[in-house]
Amino acid sequence: MKALVLERKHELSLRDIDLPLAVGPTDVRIRIDTVGVCGSDVHYYTHGRIGSFVVEAPMVLGHEAAGTVIETGRAVTSLKVGDRVCMEPGIPDLSSRASKLGLYNVDPSVVFWATPPIHGVLTPEVVHPAVFTFKLPDNVSFAEAAMVEPFPVGLQAAVRAIIQPGDTAVVTGAGPIGIMAALAALAGGCSRVIVSDLMPEKLAIAGRYPGVSTVNVRGQNLAEAVAAATDGWGADVVFEASGRRRPIMGSRRCCAPEAASC
Amino acid sequence: MKALVLERKHELSLRDIDLPLAVGPTDVRIRIDTVGVCGSDVHYYTHGRIGSFVVEAPMVLGHEAAGTVIETGRAVTSLKVGDRVCMEPGIPDLSSRASKLGLYNVDPSVVFWATPPIHGVLTPEVVHPAVFTFKLPDNVSFAEAAMVEPFPVGLQAAVRAIIQPGDTAVVTGAGPIGIMAALAALAGGCSRVIVSDLMPEKLAIAGRYPGVSTVNVRGQNLAEAVAAATDGWGADVVFEASGRRRPIMGSRRCCAPEAASC
Amino acid sequence: MKALVLERKHELSLRDIDLPLAVGPTDVRIRIDTVGVCGSDVHYYTHGRIGSFVVEAPMVLGHEAAGTVIETGRAVTSLKVGDRVCMEPGIPDLSSRASKLGLYNVDPSVVFWATPPIHGVLTPEVVHPAVFTFKLPDNVSFAEAAMVEPFPVGLQAAVRAIIQPGDTAVVTGAGPIGIMAALAALAGGCSRVIVSDLMPEKLAIAGRYPGVSTVNVRGQNLAEAVAAATDGWGADVVFEASGRRRPIMGSRRCCAPEAASC
Amino acid sequence: MKALVLERKHELSLRDIDLPLAVGPTDVRIRIDTVGVCGSDVHYYTHGRIGSFVVEAPMVLGHEAAGTVIETGRAVTSLKVGDRVCMEPGIPDLSSRASKLGLYNVDPSVVFWATPPIHGVLTPEVVHPAVFTFKLPDNVSFAEAAMVEPFPVGLQAAVRAIIQPGDTAVVTGAGPIGIMAALAALAGGCSRVIVSDLMPEKLAIAGRYPGVSTVNVRGQNLAEAVAAATDGWGADVVFEASGRRRPIMGSRRCCAPEAASC
Repeated sequence: MKALVLERKHELSLRDIDLPLAVGPTDVRIRIDTVGVCGSDVHYYTHGRIGSFVVEAPMVLGHEAAGTVIETGRAVTSLKVGDRVCMEPGIPDLSSRASKLGLYNVDPSVVFWATPPIHGVLTPEVVHPAVFTFKLPDNVSFAEAAMVEPFPVGLQAAVRAIIQPGDTAVVTGAGPIGIMAALAALAGGCSRVIVSDLMPEKLAIAGRYPGVSTVNVRGQNLAEAVAAATDGWGADVVFEASGRRRPIMGSRRCCAPEAASC
Repeated sequence: MKALVLERKHELSLRDIDLPLAVGPTDVRIRIDTVGVCGSDVHYYTHGRIGSFVVEAPMVLGHEAAGTVIETGRAVTSLKVGDRVCMEPGIPDLSSRASKLGLYNVDPSVVFWATPPIHGVLTPEVVHPAVFTFKLPDNVSFAEAAMVEPFPVGLQAAVRAIIQPGDTAVVTGAGPIGIMAALAALAGGCSRVIVSDLMPEKLAIAGRYPGVSTVNVRGQNLAEAVAAATDGWGADVVFEASGRRRPIMGSRRCCAPEAASC
Repeated sequence: MKALVLERKHELSLRDIDLPLAVGPTDVRIRIDTVGVCGSDVHYYTHGRIGSFVVEAPMVLGHEAAGTVIETGRAVTSLKVGDRVCMEPGIPDLSSRASKLGLYNVDPSVVFWATPPIHGVLTPEVVHPAVFTFKLPDNVSFAEAAMVEPFPVGLQAAVRAIIQPGDTAVVTGAGPIGIMAALAALAGGCSRVIVSDLMPEKLAIAGRYPGVSTVNVRGQNLAEAVAAATDGWGADVVFEASGRRRPIMGSRRCCAPEAASC
Repeated sequence: MKALVLERKHELSLRDIDLPLAVGPTDVRIRIDTVGVCGSDVHYYTHGRIGSFVVEAPMVLGHEAAGTVIETGRAVTSLKVGDRVCMEPGIPDLSSRASKLGLYNVDPSVVFWATPPIHGVLTPEVVHPAVFTFKLPDNVSFAEAAMVEPFPVGLQAAVRAIIQPGDTAVVTGAGPIGIMAALAALAGGCSRVIVSDLMPEKLAIAGRYPGVSTVNVRGQNLAEAVAAATDGWGADVVFEASGRRRPIMGSRRCCAPEAASC
């Protein structure tokens, strides 16, 4: 099967590669429609590694995917051929300690697409467990569905933040994860979100969503902007999505007293 | 000053009555614009009492109020003459145990409008502490602002329910408190709310809000309707706002497993 | 294999019965040492049913069990022959919606010992999945270990109550579940627990534990006793473990304001 | 009145100083018995400042205090002469936004002992509001009571951590705050706490408490010690009380998956 293969650092090819395509009793086969490109795909291409995960053999990239079911295993009842679906890219051990605690997303023994040595899904087809494949509502496009993997990063943060209805949130960093966090914060009860970044292009995208206002920290002091927007009180929740030192250290200056008392 | 006075059970008059109108240093005087009529006002009129609160002397009714500041005490800095405001109807002891714990709303020593022997605000003017008087945003009408007292009943329930983004809620009872709970649940992260009642007129009002669907339990089984709407899973949160035995006992049958495990 | 079989309502026999004893790759075989008798075992004996679970064929009773591993499946690494263990009596579908959410304990598709038509473990041996079999610390006896099934009922309640260190709890009902809730409340941070019941024998057992005081509601008013013990403030948490109408309706009178504001 | 006065950086004197001693209607006068010396007292002595708080005039040190009531204001009913008491060192504005939210401890307008320009209580007597003065149980010594101010630092952390009964905690730093956090974690439901530091003297004190074990990070790797103690799972909660870069950055390596997913 053809796939986008990272041969080694800095070298991609679109070529045939052997991939396991047997459909087990609880699996489905999916024709891929859309695959998002994650920062991790870029990292593997650019650096050949992320921490202890090292690309030591050719690997198919891509893990944010949506498509259409074209075959179902004999024990599958939740899906049928023709269903439009998206997939979780990680397959945990459901009997592990983490999974039994409801934390299968952080199961240390997870098998995760496009994480060496596991192949990703920049391919025409993939076989996946039905329990990690989800039928799309009609009003969700394949492109939106492919975002179902990065969106929970923001959603998980919003859930852990124990937002109260009407809270004001700050998100530092307007990359995809920052925007996901901002949207998740609004979905979770915040009445407004202030997103900061250095790049006007990113802020322009974030600012398109109702409820989001933006601060370019090149020209404006974030803590002052937050204070001005909140009668001096500060933000009830701060999400750090820039990965940079200054926002991490400075975020406390944006916080309302209860948050600052962490 | 003229006021709507409950002389005794079943007897109202609109007449002059002596009310304290001295503005202390931390008080404001407010010209009342709108006052909501609460179930408790109706109870005092109809039964002359609510539990241990008994109308033993003429009492001005009304505690859901909004108006305009017309005088400020000399120590008041948060408000000025002309501000459109709404008010909390209860004045707690801010140094009580409950208040220090952040629960001033349930301070047993609270002094609360239109709760015998305290007069309410169906009057042209009222004097109130500035710290319990709140400036309205321009886009909030006096009529909406008068609802600021019943709305927190729903909001408090939504906060305590620890809603997760995307949850489905059920509200049993489509009276004002049920509708407030439904709106608060949506504001707090629920993606949809199913409201049940027996009266089509009430359900019609509830059903006007986006995100709210309705079930008339005279013709439909609520647990079955919830199951149908949730692939058999059940509601993540149930708010009981009918005060009746059957919904209270039956609400467990609407619950998803995690809720049912309470 | 010999087992204690409930032939039908009111009729028990200790007799041979065919039980599945094949050890799968992820199973262990356990020689049973101790089995607790649960209220549900008594119910099935006395009434032949609990709600929709009806004893329609002979069924082995017992689901609170501890013993010693005597054989392990070839894929089992977490346990070895000779390990002293206790077992969860319910085997959920780990790929169900409830299990993926971390709620496998309330998975509607659970297979649960001594719940018709599933046999229990009042038998010399049982085969069980290793992931639901837990090695005992040396300081835990078999009798204590058999309590590992009822104890989580109390522990789950204590976890959901979001106890704060130093809280006062009330437990209405001094049966095994009430005592478990009292101990779990202490383990979860309560500094004292007041347990109420009508039966002096049960209260005597509850009162043996440090941190637990008791109220016999035949002679004493519980709300008054709680008020006296808390300077009139009330209990921070109330656990209802009697299943009776009066404690359920009366529990609000024991609550501190924050609890009463539920 | 005699007091321990910090004249300026590095210069202390024990001398007479004018202090306000009028007892208002809601105040009590207290004869001081014991005062703890906080890190902040040492900071003011050594550096003359902490951040924006600068010692610009002679200031009495000390804010961790316990003593005996010797006079009560005419409106005080909660205390009487002879009561043994401890005091909160900060007096917030109870009508501030923070206080109304139940966060008076972080009210920005708080007046706090021994924080320039407010005098502390290393003096024979002090006048204090009754609502921030607390009667001691007979089994609490004055020395223990003086610790009532630093202990809540640990307790607040334990409350915010949402400990579940049986959790394992790690505390990095075995100074007074670290030890307070360890004890609060145990009081809040942890079944054991692992405390790390570089100094054997501090670890020896921490290790005296049942439930606390210690790791000297000069000779042992903390993450490895935690992994060994938890079957490789990690700590459920980590409290950072060293203020140093390495423990802050390294704490994630001690965490169990759910914590690491923050």
